[in-house]
Amino acid sequence: MASRQTPHHISQQFDNELNDLRSNVLAMGGLVEDHLEKVLDALANSDSELAEYVATNDYRVNALQVEIDEECTGILLRRQPAAGDLRLVLAVSKTITDLERIGDEVEKVGRLALELTTVESPKAYYVGILAMGNHVKRMLHDVLDAFARMDSQAAFQVAKQDPEIDAQNNAIMRQLITYMMEDPRSISQVLNAVLAVRAFERVGDHADNIGEYIIYFVEGKDVRHTSLEEMDKEFKFSAKEK
Amino acid sequence: MASRQTPHHISQQFDNELNDLRSNVLAMGGLVEDHLEKVLDALANSDSELAEYVATNDYRVNALQVEIDEECTGILLRRQPAAGDLRLVLAVSKTITDLERIGDEVEKVGRLALELTTVESPKAYYVGILAMGNHVKRMLHDVLDAFARMDSQAAFQVAKQDPEIDAQNNAIMRQLITYMMEDPRSISQVLNAVLAVRAFERVGDHADNIGEYIIYFVEGKDVRHTSLEEMDKEFKFSAKEK
Repeated sequence: MASRQTPHHISQQFDNELNDLRSNVLAMGGLVEDHLEKVLDALANSDSELAEYVATNDYRVNALQVEIDEECTGILLRRQPAAGDLRLVLAVSKTITDLERIGDEVEKVGRLALELTTVESPKAYYVGILAMGNHVKRMLHDVLDAFARMDSQAAFQVAKQDPEIDAQNNAIMRQLITYMMEDPRSISQVLNAVLAVRAFERVGDHADNIGEYIIYFVEGKDVRHTSLEEMDKEFKFSAKEK
Repeated sequence: MASRQTPHHISQQFDNELNDLRSNVLAMGGLVEDHLEKVLDALANSDSELAEYVATNDYRVNALQVEIDEECTGILLRRQPAAGDLRLVLAVSKTITDLERIGDEVEKVGRLALELTTVESPKAYYVGILAMGNHVKRMLHDVLDAFARMDSQAAFQVAKQDPEIDAQNNAIMRQLITYMMEDPRSISQVLNAVLAVRAFERVGDHADNIGEYIIYFVEGKDVRHTSLEEMDKEFKFSAKEK
C-alpha cells in the first residue's frame, strides 16, 4: 500500500479532528516553505529587509507547533486512538518537531543573510548557497506534498536525495575554502556562507525525517535508521515507480 | 511543585512499565554521555582509535531510540494513559528524539576528530573545542540527572546556561577566524574545528530541549518558546533556589 487516507470513523467528529490535524500540519509546512523562499530571495537579491523579516518571524512557526502539539495531546486523551489513528497522531507530533527545526535553520540563514547583504560580497559565494537552498526547497515541497497525500512512495523519493545533498555539500565546501585561501580578508564573510550552506543541509535532513514518519504512518513500520536499500527491499518502492 | 515521581497505579504492572521506560531513557542518556566523554578524550589525546569508535558506534544509540519509541507506542495503545502518565510518555518520546540527535552530533564530532588527529595540529585549535565540549557535557549530565529525579528546578538551571553557551561560541569562533587569517594553509583544518564547536553547541541546545520536556511533565505546561524570564515568573524557580 503506497498511500493511505484517514480511516472513516463512526464518530464524524473524530474524522473532522484528524482532518483538521493534517490541515494544520500543512499550514505550518506552508509557512516554513514561505520563509525558506523568502530567505532565498533575500540572498539572491541582497534584500536585507526580506532577510530581516525571516530572521524575526520564526515565532509564528513556533506558535503553530505548540498549538498542533496540544491538538495531538487532546486527541490522545479524548479519543485514545488505536492502530492507524495512533500512528497518525504520533507521525504528526514528530513531523511538527522537524518543521519547527527547519524554521530554526531558516531563521538562522535569515540572520546570516543579514550579515552577507551588508557588505559588497562577490556573488560567487552565493552560487553554492542558492544551489543548496533551492535543492532543499524542492525536497521540503515534495515531502509536504507526500504528507498531504500520505504517499509513502513519494516520501521514499525524497529520502533518496540525501546522498546527493551530501555530495553537493562537499563540493560547495571545497569551493568556499578556496575563496578563503585566495583572500584571507574574506574569511569571516565566507564563514557565514559556510554556516548558511550547513543550515540548508540540515533542512534537507529534516525533510528526510518527515518522509520517514510518512512511511511509518502508511506502512506501519519505523524506518528511521533503516538504509534506503532495506526500505526499498521491504516495501518495493522502486518496483512501483512509473 | 519542583519534582514529581511516577504516580502509583492500581495496576502494579503499569507502574513497572513506566519505571522501565524511565530507566531505559537514562540508559540511552548514559550511552550518549559515554560517547561524548570518549570524543573529548579522543580530541584531548589525539587518539584516533577512540575517535573512530565514536564515529562508528552511533547505531547503538539509534537502536535504543527505536526500542524506547516502541515501548511508548505500546503504552499508549494498551494503557491509554491520562494526565501525568500521558505527559510522561510524551516527554519520553520527545526526550529520546533529542538524545538521538545529540548522538548524531557526537558522531559528527567523532568524524571531525578523525580528521583533526591525522595531522599535526597546533593544540591551540583544541582549546576552544574542548572548552565548549566540556561545558555541554556538564549540561547533558545535569539534565539527565534532572530527568532521573524529574526535577523541574534543576531542568531550569540547565536552560539558564543557554546564553553562556552562545557567548562562549562567539568568542571561540572569533579566535578560530584569527587562526585562519594568520595561516591560510590551515583553513580546512580550522574549519573542522569550527564545525566541531558548532556540533557541541547543538548538543547544548538539545540538552536545553530535554530540560523543557521535564518542566512540561512536572509543571504540566509546554514551555518551549517561553523565555527564561517568563518561565521563572510562572514557576518561581529562582525564588526556590537554595
